[in-house]
Amino acid sequence: MSGHLDELARSKGWTVTAEKTVRYDVILTGGLFDPESRVFLESSGTHTGGGIRRFIVIDRTVDELHGARIRAYLDHHEVRYKLLTLEVSEQNKTLELVSVIVRALDEYGIDRHEPIVAIGGGVLLDMVGVAAGLYRRGTRYVRVPTTLVGLIDAGIGAKTGINHDGYKNRLGAYHPPVAALLDRTFLATLDERHLANGMAEILKMALIRDRDLFDLLAEHAPLLVAERFQGRTPAGDRAACEVVRHAVGGMLDELAHNLWEHTLARPVDFGHSISPAIEMSALPELLHGEAVAIDMAVFVVIACRRGLVSPEDRDRILALIVDLGLPVEHPRLDRSLLRGALAETVRHRGGMARLPLPVGIGSVCFVDDVTESELMLAVKELRELGGEDAERAGGG
Amino acid sequence: MSGHLDELARSKGWTVTAEKTVRYDVILTGGLFDPESRVFLESSGTHTGGGIRRFIVIDRTVDELHGARIRAYLDHHEVRYKLLTLEVSEQNKTLELVSVIVRALDEYGIDRHEPIVAIGGGVLLDMVGVAAGLYRRGTRYVRVPTTLVGLIDAGIGAKTGINHDGYKNRLGAYHPPVAALLDRTFLATLDERHLANGMAEILKMALIRDRDLFDLLAEHAPLLVAERFQGRTPAGDRAACEVVRHAVGGMLDELAHNLWEHTLARPVDFGHSISPAIEMSALPELLHGEAVAIDMAVFVVIACRRGLVSPEDRDRILALIVDLGLPVEHPRLDRSLLRGALAETVRHRGGMARLPLPVGIGSVCFVDDVTESELMLAVKELRELGGEDAERAGGG
Repeated sequence: MSGHLDELARSKGWTVTAEKTVRYDVILTGGLFDPESRVFLESSGTHTGGGIRRFIVIDRTVDELHGARIRAYLDHHEVRYKLLTLEVSEQNKTLELVSVIVRALDEYGIDRHEPIVAIGGGVLLDMVGVAAGLYRRGTRYVRVPTTLVGLIDAGIGAKTGINHDGYKNRLGAYHPPVAALLDRTFLATLDERHLANGMAEILKMALIRDRDLFDLLAEHAPLLVAERFQGRTPAGDRAACEVVRHAVGGMLDELAHNLWEHTLARPVDFGHSISPAIEMSALPELLHGEAVAIDMAVFVVIACRRGLVSPEDRDRILALIVDLGLPVEHPRLDRSLLRGALAETVRHRGGMARLPLPVGIGSVCFVDDVTESELMLAVKELRELGGEDAERAGGG
Repeated sequence: MSGHLDELARSKGWTVTAEKTVRYDVILTGGLFDPESRVFLESSGTHTGGGIRRFIVIDRTVDELHGARIRAYLDHHEVRYKLLTLEVSEQNKTLELVSVIVRALDEYGIDRHEPIVAIGGGVLLDMVGVAAGLYRRGTRYVRVPTTLVGLIDAGIGAKTGINHDGYKNRLGAYHPPVAALLDRTFLATLDERHLANGMAEILKMALIRDRDLFDLLAEHAPLLVAERFQGRTPAGDRAACEVVRHAVGGMLDELAHNLWEHTLARPVDFGHSISPAIEMSALPELLHGEAVAIDMAVFVVIACRRGLVSPEDRDRILALIVDLGLPVEHPRLDRSLLRGALAETVRHRGGMARLPLPVGIGSVCFVDDVTESELMLAVKELRELGGEDAERAGGG
């Protein structure tokens, strides 16, 4: 950290300039809570004299599935801890639950160097991130994602967020964790719908920058889902390793150069232009990745109509979305929702839409001129494609 | 902004490194809302095609005193605006009021480059700063302090804060404004108690780093208070200019090198070791600066007992505190409050007390070994001094 102070000309004041460096580790590990592993102990901050203390926020479902072995691990290593179990969803990812976390932090008492630990899916990680960002103007925290979307997206970036007044992630900060600990073994207990939810973000990464990743997904998606990324066969293990490495490495490369989003034309915003409005409008029906899949499908169709994606690539992409068990459209997609979504995106991206559109598979460009009519035409085309599929399925 | 991504050894993951530069202007101006001034228009961010829009949060008292001329100014310059008037105090400087600001922001609709403007005292600036920091993960804002403490302290740094569960500024962020516009004319309507409140922070700056500023205060304090920093006489104008320039310049110099408080031994924390506990315990009786004055008096006495400050300097300092109309002790100062305050300070400063103690006038050192007993002895000494003063006053 460094900074300086300049006196403005003619004694009219001062300019303060300061630089901040952030650095965090994203660690691939297996068996994070196996008794012999020391990754959790060593990567989550400083130990002071009296042993290790940890304040841990954990998702209720994760606690039910993995709480016993996590407690056994902590006891085995004589960690003194408080485990705060929360039932979280997009509906209660709000200031009220942040306040609950803060009250528990006050009761437990942590000093400025003891990290908060968050164990759960994207919603929990987003919300604990907000609490950590606010607590004492920024407290260290460690992310342990337990879902696929957490592992390759929500768990590894700097963004935190909570919903407010019906707007998705309206409040939050850029407050990166000190470490993100990625342990694929948590995915063993994930259902197929939540796997597909994460697959949507992996597909996004493939479409915006990584054609090899797209080919990996197209070839191995059923195997990955069947094995839940656990590598039960050599081929499945290789595919899981490769896909995670491509997806996480790609995401971090995008983030590292734009951690605070000063560049508002962000390739990683692909799939996130109209999806916040779709997701919030359809709560609790749609998962985040499902809304992202619909958004991607709509913009792939638009890109094809504009000649940026070939009809063959469009069909390969839409087929993969469907193969992953993800939707390509939703009954709520109407003119009014799309108008609101576009307006909100323009506000959020500083007065211009900066909509990422795919160029072939593995690249994007940015456009500002997509209208609600063009969006509606794309939705209509997707509905017709869906109708044809349904007919074919019915006829077969 | 820049960043890079390193692959960790043996394919165990990645390290993300990113750098962020912040820069903001602190501008000394007179007549900010005089019709001919363009400082407000030009220093509060970008103008987009359709003219200037501003979302302004203003303190109710300030609105009553200055609202008419602010509206006239905005109308004169054809600014489209929303003025959100809030009644704020340390008691309602909470998440609930942040939520009110956010809802109003959603209703008005601002894009990512339109700054929020905060016009008011330290409490309002702190709270709007929290809302701006959270809104869309960080929205630009401009601070217009209207109190002395705002002008020389709360209005010019990066810190934002709200109280939570009875803890002072428990939640917040380091989210500097894009500009702080300092206009002394607002002080014309301040009462003496609120002037003294700001004088406490100026005295702090003098004690930790600026003996010239101390001499200025000792010589001119009554004149400054009588003229409310408006410079009604040449001597008063010169003193007001000098004091503001020393106090603001000193504060910014301290901040620029430690904007995110990575160094926890901070000279500017002098007066802020036990004062948060005093202030919150005595709400709404004490103003921030009054609690700071008590804290300074206690530690000046301790510094004197340890031989760091001479008895003559101690007496000069205590006399100046009293001359400024500030308290040097409080009935609530007891062993239990001091124990809690010390424990909380240790937590807040990363496991060590790092208590700034004055060394003469104009310098500090840091100590970790002050006990509640030493604090109680100092309080007792201050009470005896107060008793002697009262006796002298009664006997004279």
